[in-house]
Amino acid sequence: MNEYQHMSFMQLAYEQAEIAYSQGEVPIGAVIVKNNEVIASAYNQTEHHQNPIGHAEILAIERAATILQTRRLTDCTLYVTLEPCAMCAGAIVLSRIPIVYFASKDAKAGAVHSLYELLNDTRLNHQCKIHAGLMHEECSTLLSMFFKQLREGHIAKTHQHRQNREE
Amino acid sequence: MNEYQHMSFMQLAYEQAEIAYSQGEVPIGAVIVKNNEVIASAYNQTEHHQNPIGHAEILAIERAATILQTRRLTDCTLYVTLEPCAMCAGAIVLSRIPIVYFASKDAKAGAVHSLYELLNDTRLNHQCKIHAGLMHEECSTLLSMFFKQLREGHIAKTHQHRQNREE
Repeated sequence: MNEYQHMSFMQLAYEQAEIAYSQGEVPIGAVIVKNNEVIASAYNQTEHHQNPIGHAEILAIERAATILQTRRLTDCTLYVTLEPCAMCAGAIVLSRIPIVYFASKDAKAGAVHSLYELLNDTRLNHQCKIHAGLMHEECSTLLSMFFKQLREGHIAKTHQHRQNREE
Repeated sequence: MNEYQHMSFMQLAYEQAEIAYSQGEVPIGAVIVKNNEVIASAYNQTEHHQNPIGHAEILAIERAATILQTRRLTDCTLYVTLEPCAMCAGAIVLSRIPIVYFASKDAKAGAVHSLYELLNDTRLNHQCKIHAGLMHEECSTLLSMFFKQLREGHIAKTHQHRQNREE
């Protein structure tokens, strides 16, 4: 794949993040691609279902595994708009995704470069090829806009406790 | 709660692990307790549904969040028969479980004491009180028996690739 194609898949992840935004969820999106085709896409849904597991990457991995009928996503690439947290990085390792593109770094909870390097730990039995930074300006701007609106009271109060944690 | 009560909850987690064993799944079980009552229990189900996310802790957390209708399990205690991996430790942090009992250490993938100390990382905005070792002999014996049977061909071949990874 060339850079334009990677960009187009990250654009799709971004559009998933926009859907999250429109639903009052922290705007993070993910897509999983195999053989140049999107096989699963998802956006953060922790608030709506009050599910702490409902991060975009987790939902996309579950959907891809269901569609491919295997828990080993060995020929897949994950595109996600924010650096995965420890839970999601752990899920990436368990599902054996070999290539991960993420847009923005997450200095507070990122487990790929920022706090941990879970996807490059040779003690675990899977490591990933990581590409960081594609569309990071768009993706981080979307997050900033969301948290600004949250502070200003334009997003439902159920999100207030996330503000302290995630911004 | 006294030690006997903690033991009785770990016993329930162990019984969940036994159900996993009987279904040909790697035998790991978890229960979540609130106000001295079990509100969710689960066992590892990665094989049956081919779901890389289907660890006992993840399933128990999702069930508890659904039952309590909140993604913050702030008054709950988790009992699990094996040291949580990075994915599950990350989920414990995200769900704000304050107290975790685990039985056996996992030298290859444990993210509480063995490879990482995710539940004690003050850079994250949640830390847990951790109790390790309760019923560790019973729980590790169950795992050893499972992998022995796997090697001897008494468990379906779909598990063969796990043998290299998890034993």
